[in-house]
Amino acid sequence: MLTAVSLGPGDHSLLTPAARAALENADVIAGYKGYITLVPPELLEGKEVISTGMMGEVERAKMAIENARSGKQTVMVCSGDAGIYAMAGLLLEILEAENLLDKVNFSVVPGVAAFNSAAALLGAPLMHDFASISLSDLLTPWDVIEKRLRLASQADFVIAIYNPRSKKRSKLLQKALDIIAESRKNTTPVGIVGRAYREGQSIQTVPLNEVDPTTVDMQTVLIIGNSATRMAGGKMITPRGYHNKYDIKNNASF
Amino acid sequence: MLTAVSLGPGDHSLLTPAARAALENADVIAGYKGYITLVPPELLEGKEVISTGMMGEVERAKMAIENARSGKQTVMVCSGDAGIYAMAGLLLEILEAENLLDKVNFSVVPGVAAFNSAAALLGAPLMHDFASISLSDLLTPWDVIEKRLRLASQADFVIAIYNPRSKKRSKLLQKALDIIAESRKNTTPVGIVGRAYREGQSIQTVPLNEVDPTTVDMQTVLIIGNSATRMAGGKMITPRGYHNKYDIKNNASF
Repeated sequence: MLTAVSLGPGDHSLLTPAARAALENADVIAGYKGYITLVPPELLEGKEVISTGMMGEVERAKMAIENARSGKQTVMVCSGDAGIYAMAGLLLEILEAENLLDKVNFSVVPGVAAFNSAAALLGAPLMHDFASISLSDLLTPWDVIEKRLRLASQADFVIAIYNPRSKKRSKLLQKALDIIAESRKNTTPVGIVGRAYREGQSIQTVPLNEVDPTTVDMQTVLIIGNSATRMAGGKMITPRGYHNKYDIKNNASF
Repeated sequence: MLTAVSLGPGDHSLLTPAARAALENADVIAGYKGYITLVPPELLEGKEVISTGMMGEVERAKMAIENARSGKQTVMVCSGDAGIYAMAGLLLEILEAENLLDKVNFSVVPGVAAFNSAAALLGAPLMHDFASISLSDLLTPWDVIEKRLRLASQADFVIAIYNPRSKKRSKLLQKALDIIAESRKNTTPVGIVGRAYREGQSIQTVPLNEVDPTTVDMQTVLIIGNSATRMAGGKMITPRGYHNKYDIKNNASF
């Protein structure tokens, strides 16, 4: 049995009972070392822990699969949601490549993804259609990322940006913001959330043309409003629709 | 104190401890009657419950705000994530319209959204950039929805579709699928999940040209793969990147 388990943002109050149960029942807990530290310590006791800072993701996934094949209850932990830019897919890809899909019982425990957390801390920026885009060009060509940014902006999606920056890729966020600004006002609110629900949490909201890329790192999520998003009392609000369609003052039902 | 609380899909194993604590501490629990039934019954005991099937959303939100203003700990429950197509935004909009933003302490408890749940049940369809689009044209003009569908498909986003159908809007899903098919293969896998993690859960995956809109209702979420999404052993896999960029067989790190 192999389970990809979502830890949520890291605060144990956002770890679901289903995730906790999977961890409790595990013989082996595998994960990037930074994520292992998010597991409640009492759930690691007596478990075999495969914490691999040095090893690549593929190697770690293969070790987890090996353990599951040998009959051990094996959990791969991910921060946020294991199904969103995380390890659920790589595990399935390897099970497929090694013809193990019918030999290893695989499941995913969903969780609170990074943009769910960021949105909650910002107010209500994801009340309408949105797109999630990773700026990591390690696995995706930059021209594909650029095209997605451009079309998402033209479509007036709220845009959540993952992996906005690394040491090697210090200029990509500014390029991305410039592309979005081609079809969105400079004053569009942008929410910038670092380390949501973890020590060192930071929350800021600035207009699109005042985002400072040097203040973000790979653990930051940005949420860029759509054409109707506004700030109110420090909160970011994306209205659920077009104002001519409903009327708060007159109790209109819909 | 007013808190928009995410219940997740409904199974109590996906209700976060933070949501449970907010419910435990509440004097008043407000919500659409269908969502109140998702609250563990013991948490409703001794609470004032504002369950409004007949009333509109705006009226319900205003009643919750009135209660919070009078000093009661008030919770508005939402299925999925309260911050995604749900009540967090309407509460903020009303607080803003009534100049109450500095008088009512408002917060959101994030949760497991409907597409997180659907994705977990399908395999790993959200491993790469995606867009979430609601087909509800009650608050959004259909031409805006159409434009978003078209651009999202052109951008090769995985597409999650919310509110795919109602009695009044029986043709919209087919229209949406036709628009997506303009720039996506007929064989693109589509995951269709009804009532995820609730009684009556249904999971199916079919090619894009074989989706039967008559089998979906408003409680269904569809996830339409991108150009690289494939089926393997009954699971839907969207690879995390472009295959020339990594190599599962050779333990490549990245």
